[in-house]
Amino acid sequence: MMQTTIVRFKKPRLKKPILIEGLPGVGHVGKLVAEHMIDELGAEKIMEIYSPHFPPQVIVENDGTTRLVSNEIYSYKVKKGKHDLLILVGDHQSATTEGHYELSSVFLDIAEEFKVERIYTLGGYGVGQLVDDQTVIGAANSIELVRELEKHGVEFRANEPGGGIVGVSGLLLGLGAQRGIDAACLMGVTSGYLVDPKSAQDVLKVLSSLLDIEIDMQALEERAVEMEKIVAKLREMEQGQMPPTSDEQLAYIG
Amino acid sequence: MMQTTIVRFKKPRLKKPILIEGLPGVGHVGKLVAEHMIDELGAEKIMEIYSPHFPPQVIVENDGTTRLVSNEIYSYKVKKGKHDLLILVGDHQSATTEGHYELSSVFLDIAEEFKVERIYTLGGYGVGQLVDDQTVIGAANSIELVRELEKHGVEFRANEPGGGIVGVSGLLLGLGAQRGIDAACLMGVTSGYLVDPKSAQDVLKVLSSLLDIEIDMQALEERAVEMEKIVAKLREMEQGQMPPTSDEQLAYIG
Amino acid sequence: MMQTTIVRFKKPRLKKPILIEGLPGVGHVGKLVAEHMIDELGAEKIMEIYSPHFPPQVIVENDGTTRLVSNEIYSYKVKKGKHDLLILVGDHQSATTEGHYELSSVFLDIAEEFKVERIYTLGGYGVGQLVDDQTVIGAANSIELVRELEKHGVEFRANEPGGGIVGVSGLLLGLGAQRGIDAACLMGVTSGYLVDPKSAQDVLKVLSSLLDIEIDMQALEERAVEMEKIVAKLREMEQGQMPPTSDEQLAYIG
Amino acid sequence: MMQTTIVRFKKPRLKKPILIEGLPGVGHVGKLVAEHMIDELGAEKIMEIYSPHFPPQVIVENDGTTRLVSNEIYSYKVKKGKHDLLILVGDHQSATTEGHYELSSVFLDIAEEFKVERIYTLGGYGVGQLVDDQTVIGAANSIELVRELEKHGVEFRANEPGGGIVGVSGLLLGLGAQRGIDAACLMGVTSGYLVDPKSAQDVLKVLSSLLDIEIDMQALEERAVEMEKIVAKLREMEQGQMPPTSDEQLAYIG
Repeated sequence: MMQTTIVRFKKPRLKKPILIEGLPGVGHVGKLVAEHMIDELGAEKIMEIYSPHFPPQVIVENDGTTRLVSNEIYSYKVKKGKHDLLILVGDHQSATTEGHYELSSVFLDIAEEFKVERIYTLGGYGVGQLVDDQTVIGAANSIELVRELEKHGVEFRANEPGGGIVGVSGLLLGLGAQRGIDAACLMGVTSGYLVDPKSAQDVLKVLSSLLDIEIDMQALEERAVEMEKIVAKLREMEQGQMPPTSDEQLAYIG
Repeated sequence: MMQTTIVRFKKPRLKKPILIEGLPGVGHVGKLVAEHMIDELGAEKIMEIYSPHFPPQVIVENDGTTRLVSNEIYSYKVKKGKHDLLILVGDHQSATTEGHYELSSVFLDIAEEFKVERIYTLGGYGVGQLVDDQTVIGAANSIELVRELEKHGVEFRANEPGGGIVGVSGLLLGLGAQRGIDAACLMGVTSGYLVDPKSAQDVLKVLSSLLDIEIDMQALEERAVEMEKIVAKLREMEQGQMPPTSDEQLAYIG
Repeated sequence: MMQTTIVRFKKPRLKKPILIEGLPGVGHVGKLVAEHMIDELGAEKIMEIYSPHFPPQVIVENDGTTRLVSNEIYSYKVKKGKHDLLILVGDHQSATTEGHYELSSVFLDIAEEFKVERIYTLGGYGVGQLVDDQTVIGAANSIELVRELEKHGVEFRANEPGGGIVGVSGLLLGLGAQRGIDAACLMGVTSGYLVDPKSAQDVLKVLSSLLDIEIDMQALEERAVEMEKIVAKLREMEQGQMPPTSDEQLAYIG
Repeated sequence: MMQTTIVRFKKPRLKKPILIEGLPGVGHVGKLVAEHMIDELGAEKIMEIYSPHFPPQVIVENDGTTRLVSNEIYSYKVKKGKHDLLILVGDHQSATTEGHYELSSVFLDIAEEFKVERIYTLGGYGVGQLVDDQTVIGAANSIELVRELEKHGVEFRANEPGGGIVGVSGLLLGLGAQRGIDAACLMGVTSGYLVDPKSAQDVLKVLSSLLDIEIDMQALEERAVEMEKIVAKLREMEQGQMPPTSDEQLAYIG
């Protein structure tokens, strides 16, 4: 296998589908949201994508079996909704510069095959310190889409993200525009140091509103609560030590 | 999109054009000059170049819209002048070794298409410390061109730059020579640590003289004044602290 | 030579062969086992594989002659056994991401040519500290194979190795599954800091049991004894200094 | 220019030529020897080789003109000798793994074109500390050649160089063997930290003996004397400071 290849399991008929991308990235925010959606909605795997641009690696499952690193596409038919869903997840993004372009092109070929009407790419916006911010920052490949996202609470800030959007989450917007596909990126504000299920919740809320579907958040909330405990401990450690709480302690330290 | 591709907007008829390259590099000197010229002259964008050798990234504009990283070519018709202009600018240079060669070849194909008579590549020459030097160092792919540049105040120093000229600014001279196109590189002396609009002014003065056109420098001057203030603060910080100003202070320190 | 190329010496007729891979990796465990087997069994070299993905290097032999870095395949006919053996060894794995995929594909082409029934890839599982652990961790590309390995004392641990299996030892399982070839990886637990012939013995015991052949271990034992001495010294050094051995010394230190 | 290309200036008729390679490497030993030979013998440039695998760079000459980085081949007809010479020099070796293989193949194509009978690759063997050693270490792609080199004072040491021979100096031996071309590498023992004209002299002496031609060494000797002064200063600095030379000094320091 020396070419990027697609293994197809099903070819569902989908109604004006929307493609959601949640590959690994900053704070694993996009990955958490997309995998949570697959679990909660019971989306079906329809494709696996393998590529020599992925790290040369197999994942070991809990039962001891292995599988080659891949990207996967799931589909979900939304009852009484206008748009069905395609969800792109995976173990890794490309390990090479050119691979990012090649894989994004493959994903857009698939989007065109299914006549995808819009793409939402999901990610985190790392600010370099622990934050309580619940903001979702946006970017889109058309000004109309920017306006629409603003109505759903997405924030747009001049010069942010300053470094642009790197990887598949960015290229699907840039290369998508060349093919006339509307695409937006939703980025949960996060430290960038930790897996952040809280920020994932913020992104999922915005995305649910945009998609007009309801998704149970409990599993994500539970992970967020656990993570909050870890974050609380980290904050304590950041302060170096517990501060003295009485004169006696001060005397002792002195 | 897995190949380097050119998107064309216009195909102007140009009079013996000169190509000016100002891609990102040391002190962003070349980029500052080229972008200033585009703004001041009101040059028109005629091409966008996309490549899988660029970093896989979109830029987010101030209005929240995105665009894929690219290199761009602008054209400008010089009234009553001998030579029209093509100006090459962009977000990034290649992220791979081979990409530099491929993109430089694409740029030279374009130069040949427009029958470009000469190329000026612009850059900074980083000396590793804050400098008050207003020198513009040169290099050219023919001795006749070296002689001509000297008349316009360009300085040529044996063994400088010692590391040669790296990236598109160098390859357009080296690969240009193979195609019989005269090309020179103008390098403003700069620290290499900071964006340097002052050095950009020095380069622009030489370039204006070479091109025999006048370009208003005010915008660049204003940016230079701002930067000077930052540099002044940096110099202070380099000295570590404010020096003692009276005997009393000395006594105190002693 | 700009393509991966195979130089063939012999084309033996083999009985339902099993392919054993022991390329360089963590603790050189796989390499030690595979090279020991070749020596003890007197296996015959049947192929050399050269590739521009290997480091650009020649090895200098003890007599001053050189040979280009390569991977090699040896064959061994097992008397009265069900399965003959192919053993893959070499100087290096690929130096590029894509090269790992290309070379693994070449190895699987060879496996298919010989109608290989199963692949065992050998490696070390680095735990980051000196260990007395004699465990062999496993992973396999089918659940039936996991069950079978467990009967031979291979341990399977949820979430280990957490980073998956990288390189040819992993890809032969992942890409092998796509071709319908059963494949398992046997990993000796090791520090990851040192060449580990003791861990290699553990892996060889399991492998002998799986292959139902006897292999003399003395050479490997001797290397393990030597290494134990080095490890003992390292442990001493880890403790910083020789411990005090009398009260006088303690008094002195006090 | 996106392929490795050869620009030819002359096609001399050469008598059973020997190819000498002296590209940049450890201590620039090979480069110093090969360039010294070109200067002293007055060898003629017959080819320039350009490649996208070289760093994307132009060299700036002392007169301000530029030239694209390249490798070059010079020829020299040895009067009354058995073998004419081809000498390979250049600014850089490949910047990519695959490029080393590609360029070495190109050099061997040229060697076959001229019916080269033998190749000597020249380099330094870095031992990691300042040395007074005048040894030339060897390696060759046949045992007969090893024996022959020993007679000319080349030393062969088991397990040295332990890391093999990397780059074109190694690949010409490894890939040369595949084409049936005898090739040997001569390595001057050097620190590896500094350009080493003294070690270059040692290599040149052995090479002159092998080629049975006389080459004036004065220029190389002068550079070696200069370098010796620098090395002497470095040795002083290694000792940290000048040691006290009298009791008075000790008193003063105390």
